[in-house]
Amino acid sequence: MTHLFEQELQQLKERLLHMGSLAENALARAIQALVERQDDLARQVEHEDGALDRLEMEVDDLAIGLLAKAPLATQLRMITVAMKVSQNLERIGDEATTIARRALELGREPQLKPYVDIPRMADMARSMLRDALDAFVQARADQARTVVPRDKPVDQLNKQLHRELASYMIETPATITRCLNLMVISKSLERIADHAKNIAEEVVYLYEARDIRHPGQT
Amino acid sequence: MTHLFEQELQQLKERLLHMGSLAENALARAIQALVERQDDLARQVEHEDGALDRLEMEVDDLAIGLLAKAPLATQLRMITVAMKVSQNLERIGDEATTIARRALELGREPQLKPYVDIPRMADMARSMLRDALDAFVQARADQARTVVPRDKPVDQLNKQLHRELASYMIETPATITRCLNLMVISKSLERIADHAKNIAEEVVYLYEARDIRHPGQT
Repeated sequence: MTHLFEQELQQLKERLLHMGSLAENALARAIQALVERQDDLARQVEHEDGALDRLEMEVDDLAIGLLAKAPLATQLRMITVAMKVSQNLERIGDEATTIARRALELGREPQLKPYVDIPRMADMARSMLRDALDAFVQARADQARTVVPRDKPVDQLNKQLHRELASYMIETPATITRCLNLMVISKSLERIADHAKNIAEEVVYLYEARDIRHPGQT
Repeated sequence: MTHLFEQELQQLKERLLHMGSLAENALARAIQALVERQDDLARQVEHEDGALDRLEMEVDDLAIGLLAKAPLATQLRMITVAMKVSQNLERIGDEATTIARRALELGREPQLKPYVDIPRMADMARSMLRDALDAFVQARADQARTVVPRDKPVDQLNKQLHRELASYMIETPATITRCLNLMVISKSLERIADHAKNIAEEVVYLYEARDIRHPGQT
């Protein structure tokens, strides 16, 4: 393996980790904007999403360049996994933007009630993302594997919140617009957890060369 | 280029096209199940989603195998594009399943009103998908390019429908559950159009070697 190849592969990983911290940060700030009703912060999240878009393209370019020179199967795997992980991170950024936009709409009306479940879901999704990225950096398939089942409780919370908000709307039609915005935010968090799970699955595949997506398939 | 390599590349393309027709079909049947209130058909769509999941893994395996042997940059591009396209097709299948599930829930209650906008959105999304896949088969970047802007009107229809359904819910709270299900279906169609746009962008990139995602970025 040449020194240059190693350097470029390292660059690729660094770009990915930079994307990871941007995505995590965007999520954290979108939720903060929602909870603390900070419109400026919400607008900032929306505005800064371009950085993730740019990085995704950079990662793809680097990856294509590297693929042509990768002599080993493990390197090919690393590079293709990088491309997939970057796509998931870019989409986490999009979901954070959705949350920020809905937070802005919610900011225009009185607060429905203090948010409890939404920050909880956000914490769960963020820690999944962080652990999946950590597992990637430290080449720990076992740690990545523990991230996968943590998607389920986030799904359940989303469904529960959806039901609660639907009943609330029926009882108090004046809250419909706000409830709809909260439903969208809850669904975005569910998708972010889903992307974090996808990343974790890619990390398992990378280091164990085993496909754990779509279990039950033969 | 060896004969075997050519054959494997051909196989990869055929798998992708098979995925494309499965995805298109799933969408068509999910919408039919909704409009004609056919529960069996909805359940069938849900049940058959596994085929797309399996094919996505097959495409990845084939792609990784081919990457190791691809001598030319254009081939690398073809292979990585195939992996991305397959991921988008798999997600179209997921969205079709979502539509089928919501159709089942809607089937349990009286119909709200005849569906007009939803079949229209579905037609728009399907023709985007078909044209993007055609452009891929026929190596026509120009045709792929025309697919990209067609995502906008689908977005607009989704937003319009969202607004209409929200007003309807406020006027007639008894319809809230049904309206929510229709909102989810409309959003799924919007996402399917988005995936079709992504596929079209990948096809442009493949044949023009130019990245048209995230325009306005430098």
